[in-house]
Amino acid sequence: MRTYLDCIPCFFRQALDMTRITGVDETTQKKVLNEVSKLIPDFPLDASPPKMGREIYRIVKRITGIDDPFKKIKQKSNKLVLDIYPRLKEKIRSSDDKLLTAIELVIAGNVIDYGVKNSLDVNREIKKILVGDLTEYGKSSSFDYQKFRDALNNTKSVLYLGDNTGEIVFDKLLIEELINIFPDTKITYVVRDKPVINDALMEDAISCGLDKIVDVISSGCDAPGTILDLCSEEFLELYKNAELVISKGQGNFETLADESGPIFFLFKVKCPVIASHTGFNMGDIILRKV
Amino acid sequence: MRTYLDCIPCFFRQALDMTRITGVDETTQKKVLNEVSKLIPDFPLDASPPKMGREIYRIVKRITGIDDPFKKIKQKSNKLVLDIYPRLKEKIRSSDDKLLTAIELVIAGNVIDYGVKNSLDVNREIKKILVGDLTEYGKSSSFDYQKFRDALNNTKSVLYLGDNTGEIVFDKLLIEELINIFPDTKITYVVRDKPVINDALMEDAISCGLDKIVDVISSGCDAPGTILDLCSEEFLELYKNAELVISKGQGNFETLADESGPIFFLFKVKCPVIASHTGFNMGDIILRKV
Repeated sequence: MRTYLDCIPCFFRQALDMTRITGVDETTQKKVLNEVSKLIPDFPLDASPPKMGREIYRIVKRITGIDDPFKKIKQKSNKLVLDIYPRLKEKIRSSDDKLLTAIELVIAGNVIDYGVKNSLDVNREIKKILVGDLTEYGKSSSFDYQKFRDALNNTKSVLYLGDNTGEIVFDKLLIEELINIFPDTKITYVVRDKPVINDALMEDAISCGLDKIVDVISSGCDAPGTILDLCSEEFLELYKNAELVISKGQGNFETLADESGPIFFLFKVKCPVIASHTGFNMGDIILRKV
Repeated sequence: MRTYLDCIPCFFRQALDMTRITGVDETTQKKVLNEVSKLIPDFPLDASPPKMGREIYRIVKRITGIDDPFKKIKQKSNKLVLDIYPRLKEKIRSSDDKLLTAIELVIAGNVIDYGVKNSLDVNREIKKILVGDLTEYGKSSSFDYQKFRDALNNTKSVLYLGDNTGEIVFDKLLIEELINIFPDTKITYVVRDKPVINDALMEDAISCGLDKIVDVISSGCDAPGTILDLCSEEFLELYKNAELVISKGQGNFETLADESGPIFFLFKVKCPVIASHTGFNMGDIILRKV
């Protein structure tokens, strides 16, 4: 998916939010925005927005000298969801359609995204997930649950592209159901290569125990998405040969939306530009090939 | 009032909104954003936001070659409010406190601001004004109606700083009440010097008949606010000697908030940065010296 002009104000808002997380003073925050502004004239609109997201994060790191400003936030997000893992597991166990409930929980978990909304109260969102009615998610016309289930029935290898921390625990719950229902299918979970915003890394996969149930690899890419030109040979080999790719979150969608191939996108539409680009509505739950 | 870093994403959004009004293609729109981005590194945060608003408008004019992109919108805004002028007049006539009702209408009219929200449906807002209960406006703790009335009682000259088109007709209604109640007070209405966004100019004052009831002068400034350094000698002379200044709208507030002097600010808080700077809440109705 290309970058739209409406993304440009948002790049600055994201840069400011990211910089503020580091706790640097206003003068240093301004320096970050200055550096971002210098990139705008030469940034091509046919690049995907996460390409700029990557540049912004690199500027924040360079100017503030802080390599992983979201580290504590990421650890906290993971812990918050791990703490309720038994209750989420019980929610799935007591469901008539365990796979569907696990998918619904993953989508609900997709709200934990500091890149989109930094002030999000993760605790509050988690409470909503635990007590809320998730069945509405299945009603979107973009929610091709049956096709997704059919695709899983006909595959022996799944590449699951992770997105954010916190969410990664929801991914684990879904993967555990996939393993239960499709025990002969090989699942590989993919994390980002280096810190970028609050995206999940290998250390998050390990601390959440994903490495104990599936293979976990890095995409080789340090953008908040999966920019194939920046991915490792190892990842690209798996990606090309995967019978089914589950692409989680907006960042992966933005970078892979124009790819052909057996990709099911799974995300909640949280950005008006994506809504306009796709024809989906804000808040829509997407589970489909695009 | 200084510029905050949160204004920077908003500068880009405003630039994009303004450029789109001209109908130029995306490549030209991008050129405008490129030029705005080049200004960011050297823009001092101690300048007021309308100083950048002025620069952005100049870029839009230069790149698109369109001198007054809001001309039709401005004419339409004026006409829409002129069309309901008799009904607004009747609303005031039938009120127990005509001055208060006229002020409440001016505030209601302050929502007609394309600089803040370009997609605003002026028709819809006007309907709300006509049928709505305006008394809530008087309840804000920042609404010093009695002090304002006392100040008017003790003055012989009022300088009224206008803001946007459309609103200017509401200003006329308030000024007519001021003339009725304080017939010995000399009132001078001030417009911007050159086209900038949808701000009211001399031609708007004339087309709305303001020139028939009071003196109308240009501030000499072509920013969407009153930047004293850019104002004419004629205006500054009147400004320095005015016994009471009525400063309408956010742009005038942003540029005059740090001035001492007998200034009553009259506006609705429509911007979170202003809310944070002043301690007012979003949506608050302000009628006070600050």
